[in-house]
Amino acid sequence: MPIKVDFNLLLEVYVKILKTTGMSSENAYLGAKVLATADMWGDPFHGGMSLSKFVEIAKEGGMNPLAEMKVVKEGDSWAIVDGNDGLGHVTSCKAMDLAIQKAKKNGGISIVGVKNSMHFGDAGYYALMAAKEDMIGLAMSNVDPVMTVPGGAGRILGNNPLAYAVPAGKEKPVFLDIAMSKVAGGKLHYAKAKGESIPEGWAVDSLGNPLTDPSLYHKNGGALLPMAGHKGYGLALLVEILAGVITGAAMTKDISVWAEECSIPSNEGHSFMVINIESLMPLEEFKERMDSLIRYIKESPKAQGVDRIYLPGEMELEREEKARKEGVVLVDPVLESLKKTTKDLNMESDFKALVGNKKNM
Amino acid sequence: MPIKVDFNLLLEVYVKILKTTGMSSENAYLGAKVLATADMWGDPFHGGMSLSKFVEIAKEGGMNPLAEMKVVKEGDSWAIVDGNDGLGHVTSCKAMDLAIQKAKKNGGISIVGVKNSMHFGDAGYYALMAAKEDMIGLAMSNVDPVMTVPGGAGRILGNNPLAYAVPAGKEKPVFLDIAMSKVAGGKLHYAKAKGESIPEGWAVDSLGNPLTDPSLYHKNGGALLPMAGHKGYGLALLVEILAGVITGAAMTKDISVWAEECSIPSNEGHSFMVINIESLMPLEEFKERMDSLIRYIKESPKAQGVDRIYLPGEMELEREEKARKEGVVLVDPVLESLKKTTKDLNMESDFKALVGNKKNM
Repeated sequence: MPIKVDFNLLLEVYVKILKTTGMSSENAYLGAKVLATADMWGDPFHGGMSLSKFVEIAKEGGMNPLAEMKVVKEGDSWAIVDGNDGLGHVTSCKAMDLAIQKAKKNGGISIVGVKNSMHFGDAGYYALMAAKEDMIGLAMSNVDPVMTVPGGAGRILGNNPLAYAVPAGKEKPVFLDIAMSKVAGGKLHYAKAKGESIPEGWAVDSLGNPLTDPSLYHKNGGALLPMAGHKGYGLALLVEILAGVITGAAMTKDISVWAEECSIPSNEGHSFMVINIESLMPLEEFKERMDSLIRYIKESPKAQGVDRIYLPGEMELEREEKARKEGVVLVDPVLESLKKTTKDLNMESDFKALVGNKKNM
Repeated sequence: MPIKVDFNLLLEVYVKILKTTGMSSENAYLGAKVLATADMWGDPFHGGMSLSKFVEIAKEGGMNPLAEMKVVKEGDSWAIVDGNDGLGHVTSCKAMDLAIQKAKKNGGISIVGVKNSMHFGDAGYYALMAAKEDMIGLAMSNVDPVMTVPGGAGRILGNNPLAYAVPAGKEKPVFLDIAMSKVAGGKLHYAKAKGESIPEGWAVDSLGNPLTDPSLYHKNGGALLPMAGHKGYGLALLVEILAGVITGAAMTKDISVWAEECSIPSNEGHSFMVINIESLMPLEEFKERMDSLIRYIKESPKAQGVDRIYLPGEMELEREEKARKEGVVLVDPVLESLKKTTKDLNMESDFKALVGNKKNM
């Protein structure tokens, strides 16, 4: 049964877990906040569920908990940084912060490319960091190949995530956090768990034939299909180029699979871009225009049976608001994973304090 | 019957047609080259087919053929420019050129936003301008709403185009030029012309119900569906923000429909971004990495019956190469439109010289 727990308590437990790897308090806090925010957004896979894996990876050598991001080279509007195999979330917070500082200083736009990083969780988190500073943020990463391309068979390209965030005035910021496949890999796992078949068009097998039995997805070198064929393929390739090629990170099949291979750094690459709004347009005018665009969309005619049109990110931000007030929903897999991890780390009392403090659902 | 004509002759005819509006030779050449390139790429709708409309719009006041783009404000990495209702293609060439100059000078990344522009044809043309200078280019525009959003009914958001281009070494540059709907509006016109129905999932009517009779698309305020639901919606919104909101251009329903309303400037907005590769990575190293990525994809296992995996833009660039060598294919609608336009403008001898010079198909 899912329970609700206090956000700050959850954050403290995550910080403490990350610190057991040797990570500094500052870095553990940065990483923990990204993870706990994913839980608030209703994305446990990128939240508490992944935490135990990072502890394991740190132990096995696939991640260096003592790593600090280093700027390799930089100019007024750009930088290339080396994550030195640190936790992707930590490196990404610092790289996005650098991009924000550069856009502030040069007054226009900036790009920061990252190499020697790893899985960074929800790309939207970093994009929103810029929106909170009244800037437009973009965040992306290349990942290990789980997607095919039109005409291809099996896994060729990563289901590369791309996110953006834009501040508004009285309305909530708009933010989108997507990957380029038609459906997320999670949907296949869900169908497999329920013993259901999946429709044609979601995935192919290693020969490029339609895959409808999700239990064959892993066994058979199955691959997700890109959204809208050549469009999703082309956008995934753009992310591969901006996050992987130009940063010096590993590309496609050379990326080690973080969720399976714990002893080898995955060397994913990221790219963060920031646009300093107020140079291009007075900030108040921009925010009014955003509010008017958002309201126009929300007030547009609705299809039968639809009460409400959502803006990208609106659901997540509403869940976050609710979670801060009423507690963060922890679903069973997160609870189980946290229980096991805290037990392994002799942190049972922290787990008890966390769930003992649970609120009514 | 389609015929093939010499590229330079075609370009000359397009230049001459545009100059009849009063446009300068320089600007007519810029616009004509974008249009004739679309013909080479096999996209006649954005090539010769649209030319007669621009002549009409110039006459009716919806476009100012004497306009020159003005920089409204600028910094090292950014600018906002006013197209002054000039031909979108001309303004876009100049705005992209400005973005290239800024990225060259500041050594990193640049963005140029455009207001008071109009339909700009193939976004990919401008992105490729940057790739030809060994930079990464992005080009986008907001357009009048023909797309719905998830939960919406009828037309809400533009089917906004987005393009990027990236140079390679020995391989061709990679470039993608897409809009955000599941299928292009042209596919509905094609089905309508053939009297065929369209599958559910392509479009909805003004009430948000599935539209399968393409003849009802225009009558009924029908709207295209975004690709992959919330993903295409979110990406179209990103383009609306970068091309429309922050530039000061018209947004969504305030954009006048250039193909229907010839007397009112459409005030579309564009955005052009350029990344100066060689600051971030030595150019030769980048090009080798691009070549290796391209070859890896091309050499990946293929689905049954597939001979070849294409990179984004590869088909268009092959058609361009062939057209330069063997002549540009002009399909019937382009020929008919050119015949009528040249007749109206007393340019019959130019048309005759063009088609008299045709090559065997």
